[in-house]
Amino acid sequence: MTWSDADLGLLPALPMLYVAWADGELTDRELDLLRSSCNLEGLDAWLDPQQRPSATRLRLLLSRIRAAARDLDLDQRHDLVDLGLAIARVEGADWDPKAVESLRALQDALGFHGAEAVAEFLPAGTEVPSPESASVVETSTLAQALDEPRPWVRHETRALLEEPDFQHVGEIGTDAYRTKVFQWLRVLASRGLGGLAFPTSERHDTGAFLAAFETLAFFDLSLVVKFGVQFGLFGGAIRFLGTAEQQRRWLPQVASLDVPGCFAMTELGHGSNVRELETRAVYDPGRDQFIVTTPRVSAQKDWIGNAAVHGRLAVVFAQLEVGGQDHGVHALVVPIRGPRGGARRGVRVVDCGLKMGLNGVDNGRLSFHQVRVPRDHLLGRFAWIDDEGQYQSPIASPTRRFFSMLGTLVGGRIAVAGASLSVAKVALAVSLGYAGRRRQFGPGPGEEVRLIEYPSHQARLFPALVETLVLHLAVHALQRDYADAVDRGGELRGLESGAAALKVRSSRHGVATARAGREACGGRGYAAVNRFAALCADAEVFQTFEGDNTVLVQLVAKDVLTRFRGQFSDGRLLGLARHLETLGSLLLREKNPIVRRLRSEAHLVTRDLHRDLLHGRELELTQQVAGSIASDMALGASPFEAFRDNQLGVLALGEAHIDRLVFEQVERELERVDAPDARHVLDRALTTWALGRLVADRAWFLEHGYLSTDKSKALVLEHSSLLTELAPDVEIVVEAFGIPAQALGAPIAG
Amino acid sequence: MTWSDADLGLLPALPMLYVAWADGELTDRELDLLRSSCNLEGLDAWLDPQQRPSATRLRLLLSRIRAAARDLDLDQRHDLVDLGLAIARVEGADWDPKAVESLRALQDALGFHGAEAVAEFLPAGTEVPSPESASVVETSTLAQALDEPRPWVRHETRALLEEPDFQHVGEIGTDAYRTKVFQWLRVLASRGLGGLAFPTSERHDTGAFLAAFETLAFFDLSLVVKFGVQFGLFGGAIRFLGTAEQQRRWLPQVASLDVPGCFAMTELGHGSNVRELETRAVYDPGRDQFIVTTPRVSAQKDWIGNAAVHGRLAVVFAQLEVGGQDHGVHALVVPIRGPRGGARRGVRVVDCGLKMGLNGVDNGRLSFHQVRVPRDHLLGRFAWIDDEGQYQSPIASPTRRFFSMLGTLVGGRIAVAGASLSVAKVALAVSLGYAGRRRQFGPGPGEEVRLIEYPSHQARLFPALVETLVLHLAVHALQRDYADAVDRGGELRGLESGAAALKVRSSRHGVATARAGREACGGRGYAAVNRFAALCADAEVFQTFEGDNTVLVQLVAKDVLTRFRGQFSDGRLLGLARHLETLGSLLLREKNPIVRRLRSEAHLVTRDLHRDLLHGRELELTQQVAGSIASDMALGASPFEAFRDNQLGVLALGEAHIDRLVFEQVERELERVDAPDARHVLDRALTTWALGRLVADRAWFLEHGYLSTDKSKALVLEHSSLLTELAPDVEIVVEAFGIPAQALGAPIAG
Repeated sequence: MTWSDADLGLLPALPMLYVAWADGELTDRELDLLRSSCNLEGLDAWLDPQQRPSATRLRLLLSRIRAAARDLDLDQRHDLVDLGLAIARVEGADWDPKAVESLRALQDALGFHGAEAVAEFLPAGTEVPSPESASVVETSTLAQALDEPRPWVRHETRALLEEPDFQHVGEIGTDAYRTKVFQWLRVLASRGLGGLAFPTSERHDTGAFLAAFETLAFFDLSLVVKFGVQFGLFGGAIRFLGTAEQQRRWLPQVASLDVPGCFAMTELGHGSNVRELETRAVYDPGRDQFIVTTPRVSAQKDWIGNAAVHGRLAVVFAQLEVGGQDHGVHALVVPIRGPRGGARRGVRVVDCGLKMGLNGVDNGRLSFHQVRVPRDHLLGRFAWIDDEGQYQSPIASPTRRFFSMLGTLVGGRIAVAGASLSVAKVALAVSLGYAGRRRQFGPGPGEEVRLIEYPSHQARLFPALVETLVLHLAVHALQRDYADAVDRGGELRGLESGAAALKVRSSRHGVATARAGREACGGRGYAAVNRFAALCADAEVFQTFEGDNTVLVQLVAKDVLTRFRGQFSDGRLLGLARHLETLGSLLLREKNPIVRRLRSEAHLVTRDLHRDLLHGRELELTQQVAGSIASDMALGASPFEAFRDNQLGVLALGEAHIDRLVFEQVERELERVDAPDARHVLDRALTTWALGRLVADRAWFLEHGYLSTDKSKALVLEHSSLLTELAPDVEIVVEAFGIPAQALGAPIAG
Repeated sequence: MTWSDADLGLLPALPMLYVAWADGELTDRELDLLRSSCNLEGLDAWLDPQQRPSATRLRLLLSRIRAAARDLDLDQRHDLVDLGLAIARVEGADWDPKAVESLRALQDALGFHGAEAVAEFLPAGTEVPSPESASVVETSTLAQALDEPRPWVRHETRALLEEPDFQHVGEIGTDAYRTKVFQWLRVLASRGLGGLAFPTSERHDTGAFLAAFETLAFFDLSLVVKFGVQFGLFGGAIRFLGTAEQQRRWLPQVASLDVPGCFAMTELGHGSNVRELETRAVYDPGRDQFIVTTPRVSAQKDWIGNAAVHGRLAVVFAQLEVGGQDHGVHALVVPIRGPRGGARRGVRVVDCGLKMGLNGVDNGRLSFHQVRVPRDHLLGRFAWIDDEGQYQSPIASPTRRFFSMLGTLVGGRIAVAGASLSVAKVALAVSLGYAGRRRQFGPGPGEEVRLIEYPSHQARLFPALVETLVLHLAVHALQRDYADAVDRGGELRGLESGAAALKVRSSRHGVATARAGREACGGRGYAAVNRFAALCADAEVFQTFEGDNTVLVQLVAKDVLTRFRGQFSDGRLLGLARHLETLGSLLLREKNPIVRRLRSEAHLVTRDLHRDLLHGRELELTQQVAGSIASDMALGASPFEAFRDNQLGVLALGEAHIDRLVFEQVERELERVDAPDARHVLDRALTTWALGRLVADRAWFLEHGYLSTDKSKALVLEHSSLLTELAPDVEIVVEAFGIPAQALGAPIAG
């Protein structure tokens, strides 16, 4: 650690210069002050407003000052000038006492005071590591933290994926691919992975089923989807909507794959709007049977997995009619194929044909022409026909009954969220691995530099790595909550919004990361053998199925708006008062002119700041959107119109809520991580992610008075410097994901 | 047009309320003023700061006031209160004279004065259309404008694509697909489309070649790429790097496809860094031949189109060595296959195998083991070996010679830009068509609403439509400039940066639009038959080949920085002075406290504002990045390190430059559009696009003092209201793209 001659004379001023620049750009006033009040030699080079020192230069300066500061006694560090003088003394440098006097005046004028300003240079475990530094955490420690909950089934599934049979298919026709996936599925069933989902099985463990699903997604997404259709959706519908008797009758055969089946909800005319679906099931008391019918083209069951080839039974969602009366959407078990694979009488199956991806899954379109099924094929947990042919249900409200039927979807969404993150992890493992080996361009002939050393490369992949870690923790927390709720037989509706939120965020992130990884690998990323072809194409539809992402964000926002309205209806003014109090105290704190200009590093990385800003944005958007909807309705708009016309606000509110939800969920989840070094890495990931979210939407925060422009710029700098600090941990984090080598394929040569 | 009872009493105040809200959110001060100074009944509902009126409500109010204003005499429209009173009079409404007096006081306090404020309500052709309004332009008029330049070849190519042979392939193996594409290519060659590219052909017309390429991209991208490899890259290399004699020898066979060929530049170890490629061509004076060799694995020519199956010749880029001296990268014509398709001795070909997309193109990896070619196979326009075995070149500087060799790439980049936009057009045609038919959710059972009526759907697709129009004009301008330059035999380097800029922006836009279209079509978008599978997978690599986008943005920025530095070196201070003067006058204008708060609709849509902001950002970034690089170097960083450490700033500068370039290019191009209604539509597209670019980066403009927060919010509103106004034109714009019906496939049912 030596200083250049040019800097030696400047030593007393350097800490102050660092602080001045590091907090954002210097204002003209500040520059004038600096220039006019102090004439240390070499100072000019630091004071050109058009030549802001680069982040690298500042980082170097910081680590040099920190290193020097480490050797000083505590009492030599009163303020920035003292610190500079102390360093100069140690380094044996000369300085001009007059200049130093003017430095002190300047320090006062700029308002850089005392311990807080000096704190930045104290080596309190906040040393900035260079990309060459060693990581602070061991792979195994981090892996252990990431493998919770249900680590045992993750290990078991990884071992399975290393067996010789689980090799990626190359160019293979659709028929052969479907057959291959079905064979793989048989293996999974025979090892009892399907049975994890069902109380009729000895291995029953809801959390383990989700963990297995997530781990399988490292390998082949057609297999994962087929696994999900059979055990999660088809079996899940029987498990959640069927009686105990119906579960005993069907679930063992579902678990063993003796009876492959379908989940027939979506219709050609009604994807997202399930309540309006048109398939009919009419009870015929004469023969004590239901007659299932597809009344028109738009009522065909579309995109049904397992329908084109393998499915023998289907859980069919239909409008139930009993004694001439409609009872809304209910689920029935309908045989669609005989034991030899031929379609049952009255059942018509059309193959959905070639898709963008997931061609190992046999999607089909089903229609029913007077198909009769016995009375006890109506899944009877929430409603049944009694022996007198009367409709019975313990749930009086048709709306509540409808939502009970949809409860099946919650688990599916959590599963998709986990699988999406596995996609992101594979994409990051391949692309970061390549970036660590591949060299391109350099200072001279034959001296090319590794891709990972380029800021553009880091900017493309590091934020994705951070978001993967954060969403990983959020999804794992939700896996635990869901498994607890299911195993307690409890209410799932409380998890609906959170499941939708994480399904949206994770599926979007999975696809985006797969694409970013492809681009980061250039032409190599385009070769099918390097996984991106399948990752991009297969995961694409994760954004659409199990609930279209745009529809789900609105579901999340509606939930926020409903709770907001609820605060008013019970105890009206009290609720409003409470809301305004929270918002008010937030605004008081964050819109305070001092706070909104605060920009020390210590302040920018605090949880409180992040929580306040994320929370404040959500509260303001809630009030704004709710108010705008209410006033549109006051002007005569129908609720539907008012909601639609405010749709962009609703979506912004949904996204803001998801940000806060993820933040708080991960904050809580971090408390479960025992190993301090693993916790440190994950904790920093959350800070970096939160800063990233604020930076991405800083225009909103600026426009709504939460940030001064200087603080906004300081956030950008802090975020990018935290990202850079990730470099030494990248390899370890990727290894800790625990992707089976075989699933990853051969590494791309450098 | 009737008013509700609640609004009748408010009529005198409504114009003012509209203006107050429409320019952004009201400040607390303004609200207090309004509330305290005026007590018209019903006013409170309009003054809740948390219940900003929705865009819809404001739009309704605007059109109602406008409709009323139309019936008034001009002299009744002095100011907003007069306007309100006149309307109230016409409507026979009562009002309280005291309240009106306070309204006038208020008008003064808020500074809403005179004709400018009232102008907003004058029906001067600025009526806000509802989605149901008719478009202002005819399809054929717009199509005519969009088909320039070289409309004839676009018509000819469209007709070709309607022939029965040009049907999309469904599920087809790679071998069969490659054969099919080669057959199609034979048809194109036989119709003389390849010959367009070559001066040896009667049909030679560089602009027409680019127009044909762009039109073919409506259909199958494997065919387009194969077309580009054969005629654009392989043939183009001979055309641009070969002597007249070499052109006459080879080009007729290239044009007729009798000799399929390859463009062998990229190497396994060197994709973007062409200058460092390792293949060697050593001149052997004894036998007057070159010996072409692949010295190591990383020197293999990789991803070479036409190499795996069809290519017979290859233009190989290699380091040329003559008499023991290296002369840098040169191109040689090397036979790789005999007439029967077997590889020539010493040539090794490996099939690149399955890719994410473009599987109709046979990419291969080539290596050479002591392959001998005659002396006259060195493409000799810029360098040759004379009869004495001496190296000769009219270009003294090796660097300039190297860039002359790379000039071949310019045309390819322009071609890829055009093809990328065709991808976007197909994606928009399919998704907007579906959105116009498909209904989902609605105010009540059986009353579902078309997807296109949802703001979220518009927000996803309309900006893409606008950007497609804008980039279309920019790319067509470049097609014209390029064809002129080539046909004049002029210098292409001046077009290099622009070609790179539009290649980057268009390829990114094409892929993003294909993905957005897929998502907008939900599950239907996932079926291969609906085109998105191919569009997404095939166009993905457009971001990487013909120059990786990240590398190209840096090329663009380097060009800006070089010119900036150039301003200093010739006449040093004068250049700097000129730069500072431009920047200064911009800052003076745009950072002026009045201007940065201006937010009337008329101001927000002016070209001058947009140009100033785009220009100002570019100039500030130029100075900042140049300064930062210079000061890093002053601190001892090598040029390479300094550039790399400032890479993110360099990329931001490149993007800012591209924005301004596109803006100014399209501004000029609009002057060529004669039909006023077509021009109106395209003009508005440019305004909407420019606003969109400013809105997307408004955090930067806020942080750098160009916008007040109120003006920023007003820009957001103006942008979204302009997007909404697009609705009546959507169908016509899409039709005007002129996508052959057969290329589009069957429309998805609603």
